[in-house]
Amino acid sequence: MIIKLKDTATEKQIAKLKNKFLKEGFELHESLGTSTLLLGIIGDTTVIDINSLYAYEFIDTVLRVQEPFKKVNRKFKPEDTIVNVSGIEIGGKNVVIMAGPCAVESEKQINEIAPIIKDAGAKILRGGAFKPRTSPYSFQGMGVEGLEILENANKKYNLPVVSEIMSIDDLPYFIEKVDLIQVGARNMQNFALLKELGKIDKPILLKRGIASTIEEWLMSAEYILAGGNSNVILCERGIRTYETSTRNTLDISSIPVIKKLTHLPIVIDPSHASGRWEYVESLSKAAIAAGADGLIIEVHQTPETALSDGQQSLKPAKFRALVKKCRRVAEAVDRTLK
Amino acid sequence: MIIKLKDTATEKQIAKLKNKFLKEGFELHESLGTSTLLLGIIGDTTVIDINSLYAYEFIDTVLRVQEPFKKVNRKFKPEDTIVNVSGIEIGGKNVVIMAGPCAVESEKQINEIAPIIKDAGAKILRGGAFKPRTSPYSFQGMGVEGLEILENANKKYNLPVVSEIMSIDDLPYFIEKVDLIQVGARNMQNFALLKELGKIDKPILLKRGIASTIEEWLMSAEYILAGGNSNVILCERGIRTYETSTRNTLDISSIPVIKKLTHLPIVIDPSHASGRWEYVESLSKAAIAAGADGLIIEVHQTPETALSDGQQSLKPAKFRALVKKCRRVAEAVDRTLK
Amino acid sequence: MIIKLKDTATEKQIAKLKNKFLKEGFELHESLGTSTLLLGIIGDTTVIDINSLYAYEFIDTVLRVQEPFKKVNRKFKPEDTIVNVSGIEIGGKNVVIMAGPCAVESEKQINEIAPIIKDAGAKILRGGAFKPRTSPYSFQGMGVEGLEILENANKKYNLPVVSEIMSIDDLPYFIEKVDLIQVGARNMQNFALLKELGKIDKPILLKRGIASTIEEWLMSAEYILAGGNSNVILCERGIRTYETSTRNTLDISSIPVIKKLTHLPIVIDPSHASGRWEYVESLSKAAIAAGADGLIIEVHQTPETALSDGQQSLKPAKFRALVKKCRRVAEAVDRTLK
Amino acid sequence: MIIKLKDTATEKQIAKLKNKFLKEGFELHESLGTSTLLLGIIGDTTVIDINSLYAYEFIDTVLRVQEPFKKVNRKFKPEDTIVNVSGIEIGGKNVVIMAGPCAVESEKQINEIAPIIKDAGAKILRGGAFKPRTSPYSFQGMGVEGLEILENANKKYNLPVVSEIMSIDDLPYFIEKVDLIQVGARNMQNFALLKELGKIDKPILLKRGIASTIEEWLMSAEYILAGGNSNVILCERGIRTYETSTRNTLDISSIPVIKKLTHLPIVIDPSHASGRWEYVESLSKAAIAAGADGLIIEVHQTPETALSDGQQSLKPAKFRALVKKCRRVAEAVDRTLK
Repeated sequence: MIIKLKDTATEKQIAKLKNKFLKEGFELHESLGTSTLLLGIIGDTTVIDINSLYAYEFIDTVLRVQEPFKKVNRKFKPEDTIVNVSGIEIGGKNVVIMAGPCAVESEKQINEIAPIIKDAGAKILRGGAFKPRTSPYSFQGMGVEGLEILENANKKYNLPVVSEIMSIDDLPYFIEKVDLIQVGARNMQNFALLKELGKIDKPILLKRGIASTIEEWLMSAEYILAGGNSNVILCERGIRTYETSTRNTLDISSIPVIKKLTHLPIVIDPSHASGRWEYVESLSKAAIAAGADGLIIEVHQTPETALSDGQQSLKPAKFRALVKKCRRVAEAVDRTLK
Repeated sequence: MIIKLKDTATEKQIAKLKNKFLKEGFELHESLGTSTLLLGIIGDTTVIDINSLYAYEFIDTVLRVQEPFKKVNRKFKPEDTIVNVSGIEIGGKNVVIMAGPCAVESEKQINEIAPIIKDAGAKILRGGAFKPRTSPYSFQGMGVEGLEILENANKKYNLPVVSEIMSIDDLPYFIEKVDLIQVGARNMQNFALLKELGKIDKPILLKRGIASTIEEWLMSAEYILAGGNSNVILCERGIRTYETSTRNTLDISSIPVIKKLTHLPIVIDPSHASGRWEYVESLSKAAIAAGADGLIIEVHQTPETALSDGQQSLKPAKFRALVKKCRRVAEAVDRTLK
Repeated sequence: MIIKLKDTATEKQIAKLKNKFLKEGFELHESLGTSTLLLGIIGDTTVIDINSLYAYEFIDTVLRVQEPFKKVNRKFKPEDTIVNVSGIEIGGKNVVIMAGPCAVESEKQINEIAPIIKDAGAKILRGGAFKPRTSPYSFQGMGVEGLEILENANKKYNLPVVSEIMSIDDLPYFIEKVDLIQVGARNMQNFALLKELGKIDKPILLKRGIASTIEEWLMSAEYILAGGNSNVILCERGIRTYETSTRNTLDISSIPVIKKLTHLPIVIDPSHASGRWEYVESLSKAAIAAGADGLIIEVHQTPETALSDGQQSLKPAKFRALVKKCRRVAEAVDRTLK
Repeated sequence: MIIKLKDTATEKQIAKLKNKFLKEGFELHESLGTSTLLLGIIGDTTVIDINSLYAYEFIDTVLRVQEPFKKVNRKFKPEDTIVNVSGIEIGGKNVVIMAGPCAVESEKQINEIAPIIKDAGAKILRGGAFKPRTSPYSFQGMGVEGLEILENANKKYNLPVVSEIMSIDDLPYFIEKVDLIQVGARNMQNFALLKELGKIDKPILLKRGIASTIEEWLMSAEYILAGGNSNVILCERGIRTYETSTRNTLDISSIPVIKKLTHLPIVIDPSHASGRWEYVESLSKAAIAAGADGLIIEVHQTPETALSDGQQSLKPAKFRALVKKCRRVAEAVDRTLK
């Protein structure tokens, strides 16, 4: 970390600042430019809140040299992490597809869609039991009953399930019934929840917040790893920009950036990113070509009657065709999609 | 709500769609342009999830005519809501200032700062006991002990307190010890939490999410009002944009927009919006001139040693000067700042 | 177009408004909801500036039903446009790669790089002669001399060239020496320039503005087509968002959106989008998988000494490898890359 | 400027890089952290394009210590610049209001509105003769005839005029007929135009680009000052964000940021920032309270019939009331509005 002092900084102020860092166990390195005094702080600066240093009125700028994340850092662990979701490996050579309806609506619905998506090539069943809805007047999900329906489908079709958690209080149900616990975009910085998820060893699908930087996203993953749970899969689902022709803007570049910065796997959610079923195939192929480890896609038998997000759900036939096309792209980039 | 159908829509599809709406109790109004069929849906369309209609492949566009929020809508309640926070009225002619440190750090700290901010003109004491921090390695707050310190300061100095809640589990402590419960930007769409806050009658300070639209913000307020608690104060604290010279971008326009759309009061947080103490005075004056009902400002005896957000905290003398200047601006727009 | 009137609108006001539209040759369609009066305006509403209608104080909302663009609209011309750049077709089954240095630096440089990129598989040579630089102290380009160097390289290696125009005054040189005239992101709404380009028949590469919506981008293309020049190729080069780990955010979704809205071809610039050579390969493959008609990539013999944008330029060996990988992806989506 | 090298950098690479900077006349300062090698580059680093250094594969990060702008920098000239627009001083104690229609529509219109806005308190008349319109089918302005109308109004009412230039070719007309030449948001990075404006001595009103950073805006001003013209007034007119309830988002914080970074004056355009006449008064008062040196406001006799931007134009009576209210705010922050 490098601190640039203002020209007006007094010797006394500088001495006090230097003393503070020395006391905290850092080494200092002083450097004098033509007109500016720079102070290099050497040691584990990830524990320093850089912004807070601006409270010193005589500090002009603070420049960070190290990333603020540790355990998720690829420099800390160079080899790729492979997360095992009840037998399905994510982060290896094989690209994994998760699919299913936005919301669990009934036992019948899930029992119909589960074999369809499995047969088409999906390896994990998705379905929301607790739904974060912008409006209090929209369908809020079936709750624990929804989780039970997923659990039963898993037993019947041998298809691990992923579902979103919205409250710490529901954690026991998720541990029991779900194979992969999803943290939604709106809860990416629900730190109380992240801390609890760090204490278990179940895999976590951590969605990127709608306006989170990649660094903040990795810091949220760091919360989970710091707590002791290293089974984290990142999920990019579109970020908020000024463009309105799609629901969000898929940040496709996040794939190579994530691959560079961290050892954790990354999957893409083209359904939420685009918000329109007609764009999902194009984005799915792009994600695999760019190097994603998997996809999570909304599929519904009758999107028109879906209780949530029908506009971005694919019908079974379209989903089946999409998987075939994605397989060809996977092979063209030396991956498999089994 | 108006639905524009594609040219390719068949008579059968149209009939099915019309039937759906009629069954749900809506009236229909059909209109034929030169080349397009428009369908007007008449009734309480706030219950319809507009996006989901795009699941119908033969629908081209859906246009909303009504706002999706009801109880927070100024059309529903034209007169301003005044929220009473333990005797302090927010939303009336008087502009209210809340001030204090970002985080509660010790009993000594709070006992020193409380009389200072009160004497300078603040009416409510702020202080975080549970802190949402991007890094798991940063100070996470004193927890319940911090709330007790605030409660004691309130008793001692007769100064109502506001503090941020991060987890439903802590709600009983907040009900007992805090006068105004803050929902932070990261939890604006923590719907499980909002629902619980709708069940109590304590005033809520609802911060805008870092990338939330004004409409989403009002929908989150609607969650609380729909639950039965109408004591909601909105707080704009800067939104995320591409500009990096300030921590966030204060959306000053949100003040007149909010005043037009809703009857709820709005206060501004210039400290988080700018992220630098040197910009706080300018933004505070602007907020009052634009019509804000109050301000929430970070003040710290020694920002350099603050455990959180020292860079945006004012020293007592600067805060005192700021209140005086704000009072002059308040009077220039026919408000008071007592 | 649908106009929603305020409840307070008087009969006289409504009559006046209706009269205005009737005089302008539109048909009207009136519709009465439970509480709102809607007015449908039928005819070619692309000529109406919707925003300006809000000047009527009694108008609540104006909803557009038609897209504001005509000649670029796929509804107007359903089949794909193929633009012929001196023999190279863009917009057909074959994916076309354009490559070369950010800036023309010398005759020697261009004569070295031209055969390299041609041999690797590129079909068009890029090189900036007039450079838009944020700083007045940066290299501003070789000007007309640079265009001559490109022209000579074209003759020598039979390789059409693309270069950016910054001023109308230079147009005669571009018409004479360049095969494809690039309008840069900063000039996407330089309407005086667009009008001039509409008067010629040379192909135009129209880059998307750094914060332009897809609709604004298409409206700029409409300027050129409305002038009479239908040889327009769109180029997405990343948009500005809050994310800073890449220079811009590549809007990969723009590919399927553009394919839906317009008949014009689209190429992707992964070099400017990411701003880092290490991400270019991943984004190039993604672009082709998503359906792009071509790529424009920065290549430099020695990026370290490049006078502009060295950080995002590939070395020849990496570019050669990239083309091979892109060819495999192209084939996996039933395209060719010859 | 500080360069952080990768661990993999070889001695030979480092030596080559150091040699390059030494040759260019910089001093070097080497510093070794626990695990990283830092290289400090001392001298006038504003001439270095920082991004281009990333072309060196063994460079990890480049950190800038100096601002990239020189002549506009307040460190270079601490005292405020006051720009004299034909007798009207901008940047001093008095807050200056410019007002008038979006577009010049006829001699009659201007001759009516000019005395109205002057009488209400405006000091400069605005009016667009060349209009940048998103659609080629919208009114494009009266051109040179519009400038003549403004010139005549100036002579008749002794009211200096400001108008937007869109093409270098029109510069002679602007020099002759206009007192303050406006560079619109879309042309903020039309560097060919900026260079020409640097060669004259007429005052320039430089609007911020719709998605430009404050730094880029100052770099565009630097183009003009570097050319020799120091009569530059900055104009904030709202930036593009995800929020759609206003046309743009007024970046009110830019006022204190600009006041800190540069000596140039800043005025605010609340009409374009909000895009709705009903928000203009609130934003005008906020701008003055925050420290703006002036306002530029759209006023029209009959906004409903305006050929451009009627939705954001105030009627004369509302404008007159606004000026009175703004005067009170100006006085409350120790400014005048004469």
